Amino acid sequence: MVILGRMNLGLEGYTGIARRLLENAGAKIGDYIRIRRGDGREFKGVLMPRYSIVSRPIIVVKLDNGYNVGVKIDENTAVEVIKTKEALLEEAKQGAPAVIPLLEEKPTPGKRPKVTILGTGGTIASRIEYETGAVKPAFSARDILDAVPEVGFIADIDAEVVMNILSENMNPMLWEKIVNVVAEKIEEGIDGIVIAHGTDTMAYTAAALSFALRGLPVPVALVGAQRSSDRPSSDAAFNLISAVLVAAQAPFAEVTVVMHGTISDTYALAHRGTKVRKMHTSRRDAFQSINARPLAKVYPFERKIELLRPPLRRRGEEELSVANGFEKKVALIKYYPGMDPEIIDFLIDRGYRGIVLEGTGLGHVGEQLLESLKRAYENEVVVVMTSQTLFGRVNMNVYITGRKLLAAGVVPGDDMLPETAFVKLSWILAHTDSFEEARRLVRENLAGEIEYRHTIDLYPRWPH
Amino acid sequence: MVILGRMNLGLEGYTGIARRLLENAGAKIGDYIRIRRGDGREFKGVLMPRYSIVSRPIIVVKLDNGYNVGVKIDENTAVEVIKTKEALLEEAKQGAPAVIPLLEEKPTPGKRPKVTILGTGGTIASRIEYETGAVKPAFSARDILDAVPEVGFIADIDAEVVMNILSENMNPMLWEKIVNVVAEKIEEGIDGIVIAHGTDTMAYTAAALSFALRGLPVPVALVGAQRSSDRPSSDAAFNLISAVLVAAQAPFAEVTVVMHGTISDTYALAHRGTKVRKMHTSRRDAFQSINARPLAKVYPFERKIELLRPPLRRRGEEELSVANGFEKKVALIKYYPGMDPEIIDFLIDRGYRGIVLEGTGLGHVGEQLLESLKRAYENEVVVVMTSQTLFGRVNMNVYITGRKLLAAGVVPGDDMLPETAFVKLSWILAHTDSFEEARRLVRENLAGEIEYRHTIDLYPRWPH
Repeated sequence: MVILGRMNLGLEGYTGIARRLLENAGAKIGDYIRIRRGDGREFKGVLMPRYSIVSRPIIVVKLDNGYNVGVKIDENTAVEVIKTKEALLEEAKQGAPAVIPLLEEKPTPGKRPKVTILGTGGTIASRIEYETGAVKPAFSARDILDAVPEVGFIADIDAEVVMNILSENMNPMLWEKIVNVVAEKIEEGIDGIVIAHGTDTMAYTAAALSFALRGLPVPVALVGAQRSSDRPSSDAAFNLISAVLVAAQAPFAEVTVVMHGTISDTYALAHRGTKVRKMHTSRRDAFQSINARPLAKVYPFERKIELLRPPLRRRGEEELSVANGFEKKVALIKYYPGMDPEIIDFLIDRGYRGIVLEGTGLGHVGEQLLESLKRAYENEVVVVMTSQTLFGRVNMNVYITGRKLLAAGVVPGDDMLPETAFVKLSWILAHTDSFEEARRLVRENLAGEIEYRHTIDLYPRWPH
Repeated sequence: MVILGRMNLGLEGYTGIARRLLENAGAKIGDYIRIRRGDGREFKGVLMPRYSIVSRPIIVVKLDNGYNVGVKIDENTAVEVIKTKEALLEEAKQGAPAVIPLLEEKPTPGKRPKVTILGTGGTIASRIEYETGAVKPAFSARDILDAVPEVGFIADIDAEVVMNILSENMNPMLWEKIVNVVAEKIEEGIDGIVIAHGTDTMAYTAAALSFALRGLPVPVALVGAQRSSDRPSSDAAFNLISAVLVAAQAPFAEVTVVMHGTISDTYALAHRGTKVRKMHTSRRDAFQSINARPLAKVYPFERKIELLRPPLRRRGEEELSVANGFEKKVALIKYYPGMDPEIIDFLIDRGYRGIVLEGTGLGHVGEQLLESLKRAYENEVVVVMTSQTLFGRVNMNVYITGRKLLAAGVVPGDDMLPETAFVKLSWILAHTDSFEEARRLVRENLAGEIEYRHTIDLYPRWPH
């Protein structure tokens, strides 16, 4: 379905040669145009607006596959209108096959929601610029509007670079920095926040924000790209529009990860920050909720958010109280057959205050670890058990090993993701000195990280 | 569909009061009977044969849900034939809804395949006995035939207890023991081997056998149960019949994990031992192939094996050459944000010869580990990179972090599961002292652990 809305914007963003070419062709924003370059390459798509006041020889079109591209032009370029916006709209009314979905500009700019996009680095931020080969390490609101003009139709965009790192270098200290900036923005009265983040550790950061931003009053949407924007299959624009839509319009006030739901451009998903995981190295739909239904489907072109479950908190329902801080002496240890207990002993000796075990099955490790785990308990190291199966729920009462581990003081992690349990334990230990209080808090559902009821259909369908 | 075959077995296995009750009722094996006990409980199902010569007051019936149950009886029990086997067969011919699937006894017992079931422990072995509450820690061929008579229709069963441990206590030394017993049995001319194993670490053991049993000439099927046999929803019988079928009849000679493919009793899957993973703490269909199609669908009641892909090796194609041995000084380390490099340094200092990293995304870790990983290389510790996303393929050439890690000597693990990479590295390091040879072998596809081509449909469908 084509959604061509009122696009009242003119050619103001285009200057110099780009403006001249477009004016000579009589092209208007929303028209379907053809650009023929001197090098013989041809581009067809819907003419997109440009917000930049920096003169660059670029014309931005939305290609038939839904992706925007900035076409570099020069004196030898020819521009031609193939179909006017009006003709496209007419075709759409008559049920013609989808041409290009465009967002409708809101008629009342004065009341538009205010959204801040915070840049932390990663593919989405470093390559948000469309010009071929141009890698931009940071971005301004204007850069974003140039690259993905659609976000300007949804909200008044403000952008800020908080840091510029590859997300594999993210760490608990940087989580604290992000928490502080988000809190500042919320105090300034922003309606929603988007955090552009590398995908590698995005789920960890989402969990961290979920625990630290207590009583969140607005949506915080983390977003990234699996493919950089200079590739034709980039998911950057689709995801960013979806995330801005969540920040601007979602009824829920939760920390979410907003990423492609499928490999097509049908919908994005808003996942609860404590139940989401990157499940594929490269697919666009790599992010998936585990042991939980996603919070919402997000249709960026239709500007529609479809709730899939009741949220933890509605917009404006509570008041923000920041509980920032993460204990650095916490480890996530995956069990494997024959694992030497010396690794546990080492962590105890090095003064670790918490260990999250990624055990087997219902929450087991080999009995050779038992003495060291008892020692951990005696040294007031909080040990939490999760499962490397990822799906399902730890149950340490079924088998003798589980019961022995419980007796040794290991705290069952219920259905928490190992990664979320790690972040949670880091957060808890930064906020209490009491060993028993920390152990108690691990078992409490603090930010939707525990899902008490699993329906049978939560498990994915495997390809066989 | 009902498959009621020729069941020529009589009531020989039943003795004492059970035999008397059945004879008085005129019941034959395969008849649909009702058992009314003195305590008011009633059981309906198909009368199953019993192989035991030990007199026990038990009648085994296959319930409508497909599960066998051993009903304890006494003088106050009434037995009644509701429908004869012949009537059931007639109904089945006329397309009546499924009653009970039963296996057909092979007409030529002399040429029946010989299958050895090796017990290592776990739910399937410790609870294979149906009598309520009776937990049997080990099993004999007769115990198995009593509990799951169907396996006796498929092959001549021989059973041996190799060990009796909970699988969380499995370790590389015990892998070596299993490899030796399997090799012995193959030398004795067995047609296939079933290994009853706890599910927690079954996939690790399957990978270990895959690397150690070079040129395997017969199928080796690992099998387990997610629910113990004393529970009505037990998957023990279904899985065991499927595994025996694979051992007896599969055309492929590979190490596989044979477990429920779905939550219903439609088919089991035979997964390649190097590509399978336990993905759920408790579901019957917990075992799934990752980054690979399962080898076959197994329909135990229809005795049908449907190949889903070409096998690595066909039955009898090669000759067994055992390469047993696993290096114990190998660790599997999962990366998490802020991870302290001291953990890597500790492993180097403790003389570890190999480390498998479960990195983020395409195969990354935070740059704080870089110096320690270089030190590992200088100390000839083989470091292999896999991804905690599980799905997809490590690609360390895309981002600068990956390239830095490659430069530091980290070996990319392609699309290998972290667990399989751990087992593989343990195996490699037990068979070469050459650092460079070990690094080279990691990248070689030794037992189907690397899948070079991923089709788009290999990723599961998520519930949204």
